[in-house]
Amino acid sequence: MIALLRAGATDPAARDLTDDAAVLDLGDHFLVLTHDMIVEGIHYLAEDAPSDVAWKLLAVNLSDLAAKGAEPNGVLLGYMLGDDEWDRAFAEGLKSALSAFGVPLLGGDTVSSIPGAPRTLGLTAIGRCRVSPPSRSGAREGDHIWITGTIGDAGAGLAVRRGELKGSRALTERYLNPRPRLEAGQRLAPLVSAMMDVSDGLLIDSQRLAQASGCAVAIALESVPLSQAYLEARGDSRDARLAACTAGDDYELLFAAPPQAAAEILALADEIGIPCSRIGLVGRGTGVTVLDRGATVPLPDRLGFEHRA
Amino acid sequence: MIALLRAGATDPAARDLTDDAAVLDLGDHFLVLTHDMIVEGIHYLAEDAPSDVAWKLLAVNLSDLAAKGAEPNGVLLGYMLGDDEWDRAFAEGLKSALSAFGVPLLGGDTVSSIPGAPRTLGLTAIGRCRVSPPSRSGAREGDHIWITGTIGDAGAGLAVRRGELKGSRALTERYLNPRPRLEAGQRLAPLVSAMMDVSDGLLIDSQRLAQASGCAVAIALESVPLSQAYLEARGDSRDARLAACTAGDDYELLFAAPPQAAAEILALADEIGIPCSRIGLVGRGTGVTVLDRGATVPLPDRLGFEHRA
Repeated sequence: MIALLRAGATDPAARDLTDDAAVLDLGDHFLVLTHDMIVEGIHYLAEDAPSDVAWKLLAVNLSDLAAKGAEPNGVLLGYMLGDDEWDRAFAEGLKSALSAFGVPLLGGDTVSSIPGAPRTLGLTAIGRCRVSPPSRSGAREGDHIWITGTIGDAGAGLAVRRGELKGSRALTERYLNPRPRLEAGQRLAPLVSAMMDVSDGLLIDSQRLAQASGCAVAIALESVPLSQAYLEARGDSRDARLAACTAGDDYELLFAAPPQAAAEILALADEIGIPCSRIGLVGRGTGVTVLDRGATVPLPDRLGFEHRA
Repeated sequence: MIALLRAGATDPAARDLTDDAAVLDLGDHFLVLTHDMIVEGIHYLAEDAPSDVAWKLLAVNLSDLAAKGAEPNGVLLGYMLGDDEWDRAFAEGLKSALSAFGVPLLGGDTVSSIPGAPRTLGLTAIGRCRVSPPSRSGAREGDHIWITGTIGDAGAGLAVRRGELKGSRALTERYLNPRPRLEAGQRLAPLVSAMMDVSDGLLIDSQRLAQASGCAVAIALESVPLSQAYLEARGDSRDARLAACTAGDDYELLFAAPPQAAAEILALADEIGIPCSRIGLVGRGTGVTVLDRGATVPLPDRLGFEHRA
């Protein structure tokens, strides 16, 4: 199905359907468009608070815009009506989330649902970018691999919610209310050679970046930034670090940049208060390799979550 | 829920969520955005051919762009995977439909479904317009009310499909494969004072145009254009004409224009080969009135279909 769709998506703006978003060149600027869906029972649990579901639906889409360095212009909502109380709480939650990010609701559609059917929600986010939005395919041999923020918190937060792990509220917060790196994305876009958001796991998304760029990516496990909350919950073993790198829902920005951009990236990180960490290198070859203080580590069986087909 | 969303959609581009599409003013042109969803069992039948469902999903969204005079730039698909064979046939159908309208697929999302859940599909269409896209609210006292094409065919086509009516293939074709009036919309946009597409029924949509414009609309039943296929199936009685005016899925353009634009509209209709018929007038007051050769006709209980909340 996806191969068939891809074969039909030959417009350059579609970026072969392998990027975070579509990019339309409008001459004096670029329009960036993304549409993500979430389904009850697959992407969220029926018992999740409607306001958290609203936040997440918005955040995952804005994260795609962030990854292309775009400033959001607005969103369209595709909403399946169900339980009246839930619907109201969702609408209130969406309003707060939109206002937190300063993004307007522009339109969309609401449809009735068939009783008992899982709720399916979609959101389209539209943004603009003055510079050519970075793709996943621009990484070149010799580039550094960078990541914003910290990795693994949301995955640990999900484990805490499920009662599988003891950990602080900071972790569940990262799971429930991810913060798309909009400002960082806009500021980094002119400096990077490739950029994408980490939604399914650092390793699987690094592999995607490597594949799209026709290069190999090596990740230095000891350089992957972990939060204090994560270290307290999971410790700092190799396994704990591998768990962080294969957990989903980080919504951090993964990017490649030439070595000469390093000073500017670090200065920018300082200025906007979002840490940017150098965690690897782009080399010749294919695929992703993990090193722990110089020694190659066998890749885990699962490099991340693929809940989105 | 919708009232809550509306209260949060204060950006002018949202057009109070009462228009066919959102309109972003980008300075030298306008961006028009729409998102419609369809749900199995509500908007289409499980036994409908996947290629017809694909066509309809695309056509209903392009019709919203047509109503704003926009030229489509592309679409994003939100697709719930289900049965593999159905999915493939849908993808093939979508490819043909996109190619028939010359519109590229730019991106979107596919999600897994929960077994047995009705399929939910969404599509976002993006277009551009050089002139300010007509709204529903610009009709003024003294304007003529116009309609493109013919009315009632799709509704009769649905009745034929259900075995409730004898009628030709031309009717079911209109139901299954609506043709959004893209060229007409683009050419008419600079001439009209208000425009929208007729998706739920001529009378209910006329009422919406009247309400948005703060005017009354009177429709002359005898002037409503009916196709030969419709007349053969339903006849030309007052009831047959009222049935046409309250049937859904026409996807024609309903518009208001000052009387002095009439000659230009008729010349344009001739040039592009899409009939434009004068069917009514805008007056002082509120609501929609139906006249049959000058005599007021009691409004039917149902002015159209409201399958879309």
